[in-house]
Amino acid sequence: MSSSTARETPPMRFLSDNAASVHPALWDAMRAADGGDAPYDGDRLSHRLDEVFGQVFGQDVAVLWVATGTAANCLALSAMVPPHGAAVCHREAHIEMDEGGAPGFYLHGAKLLLAEGEGAKITPESVRAVIDPIRDDVHQVQPHAVSITQASEYGRCYLPAELEALGALAKERGLGFHVDGARFANAVAHLRCSPAEAVGPAQALSFGCVKNGGMNAEAIVFFDAELADVVRYRRKRSGHLQSKGRYLAAQLLAMVEGDVWLDNARAANAAAQAIAVEASERLMHPVEANEVFMRLEPAERETLRAQGFEFYDWGADAARFVASWDSDHGAAQTLGRAIAAL
Amino acid sequence: MSSSTARETPPMRFLSDNAASVHPALWDAMRAADGGDAPYDGDRLSHRLDEVFGQVFGQDVAVLWVATGTAANCLALSAMVPPHGAAVCHREAHIEMDEGGAPGFYLHGAKLLLAEGEGAKITPESVRAVIDPIRDDVHQVQPHAVSITQASEYGRCYLPAELEALGALAKERGLGFHVDGARFANAVAHLRCSPAEAVGPAQALSFGCVKNGGMNAEAIVFFDAELADVVRYRRKRSGHLQSKGRYLAAQLLAMVEGDVWLDNARAANAAAQAIAVEASERLMHPVEANEVFMRLEPAERETLRAQGFEFYDWGADAARFVASWDSDHGAAQTLGRAIAAL
Amino acid sequence: MSSSTARETPPMRFLSDNAASVHPALWDAMRAADGGDAPYDGDRLSHRLDEVFGQVFGQDVAVLWVATGTAANCLALSAMVPPHGAAVCHREAHIEMDEGGAPGFYLHGAKLLLAEGEGAKITPESVRAVIDPIRDDVHQVQPHAVSITQASEYGRCYLPAELEALGALAKERGLGFHVDGARFANAVAHLRCSPAEAVGPAQALSFGCVKNGGMNAEAIVFFDAELADVVRYRRKRSGHLQSKGRYLAAQLLAMVEGDVWLDNARAANAAAQAIAVEASERLMHPVEANEVFMRLEPAERETLRAQGFEFYDWGADAARFVASWDSDHGAAQTLGRAIAAL
Amino acid sequence: MSSSTARETPPMRFLSDNAASVHPALWDAMRAADGGDAPYDGDRLSHRLDEVFGQVFGQDVAVLWVATGTAANCLALSAMVPPHGAAVCHREAHIEMDEGGAPGFYLHGAKLLLAEGEGAKITPESVRAVIDPIRDDVHQVQPHAVSITQASEYGRCYLPAELEALGALAKERGLGFHVDGARFANAVAHLRCSPAEAVGPAQALSFGCVKNGGMNAEAIVFFDAELADVVRYRRKRSGHLQSKGRYLAAQLLAMVEGDVWLDNARAANAAAQAIAVEASERLMHPVEANEVFMRLEPAERETLRAQGFEFYDWGADAARFVASWDSDHGAAQTLGRAIAAL
Repeated sequence: MSSSTARETPPMRFLSDNAASVHPALWDAMRAADGGDAPYDGDRLSHRLDEVFGQVFGQDVAVLWVATGTAANCLALSAMVPPHGAAVCHREAHIEMDEGGAPGFYLHGAKLLLAEGEGAKITPESVRAVIDPIRDDVHQVQPHAVSITQASEYGRCYLPAELEALGALAKERGLGFHVDGARFANAVAHLRCSPAEAVGPAQALSFGCVKNGGMNAEAIVFFDAELADVVRYRRKRSGHLQSKGRYLAAQLLAMVEGDVWLDNARAANAAAQAIAVEASERLMHPVEANEVFMRLEPAERETLRAQGFEFYDWGADAARFVASWDSDHGAAQTLGRAIAAL
Repeated sequence: MSSSTARETPPMRFLSDNAASVHPALWDAMRAADGGDAPYDGDRLSHRLDEVFGQVFGQDVAVLWVATGTAANCLALSAMVPPHGAAVCHREAHIEMDEGGAPGFYLHGAKLLLAEGEGAKITPESVRAVIDPIRDDVHQVQPHAVSITQASEYGRCYLPAELEALGALAKERGLGFHVDGARFANAVAHLRCSPAEAVGPAQALSFGCVKNGGMNAEAIVFFDAELADVVRYRRKRSGHLQSKGRYLAAQLLAMVEGDVWLDNARAANAAAQAIAVEASERLMHPVEANEVFMRLEPAERETLRAQGFEFYDWGADAARFVASWDSDHGAAQTLGRAIAAL
Repeated sequence: MSSSTARETPPMRFLSDNAASVHPALWDAMRAADGGDAPYDGDRLSHRLDEVFGQVFGQDVAVLWVATGTAANCLALSAMVPPHGAAVCHREAHIEMDEGGAPGFYLHGAKLLLAEGEGAKITPESVRAVIDPIRDDVHQVQPHAVSITQASEYGRCYLPAELEALGALAKERGLGFHVDGARFANAVAHLRCSPAEAVGPAQALSFGCVKNGGMNAEAIVFFDAELADVVRYRRKRSGHLQSKGRYLAAQLLAMVEGDVWLDNARAANAAAQAIAVEASERLMHPVEANEVFMRLEPAERETLRAQGFEFYDWGADAARFVASWDSDHGAAQTLGRAIAAL
Repeated sequence: MSSSTARETPPMRFLSDNAASVHPALWDAMRAADGGDAPYDGDRLSHRLDEVFGQVFGQDVAVLWVATGTAANCLALSAMVPPHGAAVCHREAHIEMDEGGAPGFYLHGAKLLLAEGEGAKITPESVRAVIDPIRDDVHQVQPHAVSITQASEYGRCYLPAELEALGALAKERGLGFHVDGARFANAVAHLRCSPAEAVGPAQALSFGCVKNGGMNAEAIVFFDAELADVVRYRRKRSGHLQSKGRYLAAQLLAMVEGDVWLDNARAANAAAQAIAVEASERLMHPVEANEVFMRLEPAERETLRAQGFEFYDWGADAARFVASWDSDHGAAQTLGRAIAAL
């Protein structure tokens, strides 16, 4: 299959890891899940998620599958933030910028309080700058959670010490701590630390699978079982309790029972490096995960597109290139050289 | 694959069509959708849905995929019913009984007004009995839509004339008209009419695929394009815009481009008849689709379960048997005879 | 003023206590609150509410004013019931029947689970009949609170022992316990018990003032201070934090610092008895508070209206008469005799 | 009464017009409304609102009373903006900054898109800068309304031509147009134009009364009757349909049937000018309505407070002074001179 996929995937496509093909191991796992089993999440595969992810993180976890990262993020936050509250996130966080108002829907009008920070990473200081001035002011919605993205929207990774510091602030202020890990595998692969260290003292992690070779399964990993008990009801209520959940559980298990998730992430990260290394003077952000942001004039972008490369503009004078698990490494190198040659 | 599926599916399982396996044609279509394409619903398969379903219904339609029937129902209704309004449905409608409060979530607290009717089918009279007494009363939420289930929660089918009558009332009162078609294929197969006749003058149909051999794709078929334009945003906002939508579109196209959807429904309906025919004096409702409700004492149910049959209790003195596309016809006959022999 | 009011109020009006005039003591208190003070609830009168109501109930309370009973009920419940949950109430409770969908709005789509009970009073048994069958079923919204009305929608009063029994069930199941006391004063006046006994082990009471001679102030009395801390934010968020709250606090203090609230309630209850006593064989419910429900044929109602009496129909064959603090006792007697003479 | 009020109101209080006393004409009107009438908004005073405000604006209007400006703003917007949409307003608009998340509640999670502009006034250009880049992007909530504040949060007034330009943009893009007129009277008094010119082509105006001498009544003036029909239900649903609405209608009628509303606004504006004229070099914004923003170091503010003046800090290096209808003109002059003397 992967060879036929290679034929079908334009090798010069760096638009988004969102559109990559499904990894063969996941196809196999889904097919093996066919046949009868209990509906919803009563099947044997869904039942194994807690144990298998518990081994990944070295602690007790409760795991719920959902179809999308937006659902994962918003359901996790909905168990932390009441409708009259707020979550603090970076000004350019995915939940603020790209989820079509889903946080407003899932949190019933709770607000996102926007903090600053380099590389789309917030800090204890930038969070305090947002929440201290409104503390206990009844005319202002109060924070109930902090949400960060690991790796961040600019492909930057929070170091374990940075996570500990944010977690300490969250604990001090009684805030929940959520990690959007749409590209968590890429962060772990970059940080070369344990998954537990890469998520820090979070209560919930949106564990990405779709961008990393999945079809339509993401895991919400709860490090606080009470939150999972709430989200179980909210998942049903939002129409995300699929009746044949075994096909989602199968994808997740195939990802993390072997090393597929980290192998895929390493491949994507390496392809991103291959792009970046040739034209590093154009980088807007250090490349740590699988995204590359480069300053490129409109005419330069046109030149690249004329050569067959696909990517998104990033504002007026820049471009974003995203490598996937199935990106062609040679094509990535070619792209890097083409940029260097501009 | 179907043979291995047959081995894995307990042939005596009549719990729910929700847990049936995925039809081989859909597996093939999903695999063929692998490889690169545009993310979300920008792919070539999603683009073909309007045309293909337009042929099924003989009119212009706008089609959006989602993962579950609950999402399909609630998204469709959310485009018809404002938060301060209400939808009228049967007292035992799925949206009232089994969706974990999803209508409250998607309709932002709008109310369901519950109408009566035999076989879980409402009538113009039963709808009027609910909405006339509160008309224009500012202390009462006002109806903005009618929602019916085709086939109904008791496996009964609305005749085309009944749909016309309900549609006429809806039009007269300025109400939207939604059809929950989780088992729409079973209704069409029973009614032996055209799909257009089986949906009547509805503005939106939740077209079921999962219960009929799909994995995790349902179609919302809009006969009013403006509603689809609203739901496009609401689908994203509810986390149901999957990034690899081509795998959902593939399932839906494989269902309706051939006769898979009707073949599967006919097989399920036939298996239900096979159960019913042997013990018809126990039937609580005429069997029209793929569900069989029978009066069975606790001891009788115990006897059947001891013989290996699986099914749900239906209150204290009855049981529900549901046949699927992949039900074993012989097992259905055996079940019918076992009931007759009680 | 009261004499001029008497002239203006049609003495034969028994439509609703909702439309009665404002008691002179409250006018005086509002006028005395004029002049400068801190905005919102920072004024000296609002600050005194906790203490004064604490004396009424003989325990620590936190009190928030709002303008309407609907806001009081729904805000109180919103601190007990998450959006994915439900509150249990009587099938004919005001929150279900007459608040225009406000619970759906304030509870963000949470559901009302409807229990049975004579005289619009629920019982531990009728509550269990609703909540036991759905316990821990993820497809069903779960109860998080019980809400009762004291006096009930049919003018019936919960006895202290009945409140204790409901409170015990609520505690056992981890449910909040809310009392809609739009006519709480009438209940206390009837029961001749202490206010604390009349509210039982509730966490929150909507303490009615408007129906009892107020202009536009109701008190939410919290027996659990944490709920008040939540509602403080939700009151602002719902536009119910008035900027000149001292005029609401003034009304509430004038009610309960003297015996105005109980004097008014006794007067209204006595007028209701005056209606009832003459024609007791027509009563649909024992008259305990200030409402009288009587079986009256359409022609009989027409006769009464021709004599100048104003009241609401109650279905096809009955009528509701409501007495107010300022009802004319003689007119009430005349009405009772007129009914007896039919 | 006004003399006693003068005694009670600290003459050197410039904290907020929110805390001013109630104008005598409104007290008289409320007392005259006592006695019996129909409940809710069925009374004779509420019925006169449309006609009386219609005369003020020289066109057909539908008017609904509510208790607070937050409710007025959010209810009006809720009829224009669906839950999946957005309203555009200034980054420092009251609805964004000071309403405790009420727009999120009333608009069911719809978003506020924040536009720039000097003096808290937005322009067609600043609105376009926000809405053009996201046009028809399903990942972004789409605008459905524009909301401005007249006079603005910095006491600036939109000129009729500016309103026309914004209205034209709104019309072109199919957006509703709402005016938050918490200090609309102050704007009309400053602009010396007709009320109709001061509101421009808006569909709805939150007409402020509380800050201008009212107790607890604001009017939502609808220039589009269909919006009023929606808000009638939403007002009930939000607990803002008071049962004795005649006391709110009385306040509004007393305001606008005579010249009370403009007289009060002129007095407040004049007091603000009296502050500003003496120390104009410190002004952060031209003074057009009744608010004065001045650059004042912490030590300077301390000096003023030591002299008995009350006001709010405005960030680290400035202060806000607000004059009311009942501000003491001499005290305002004294304040201005005290600032000049710093």
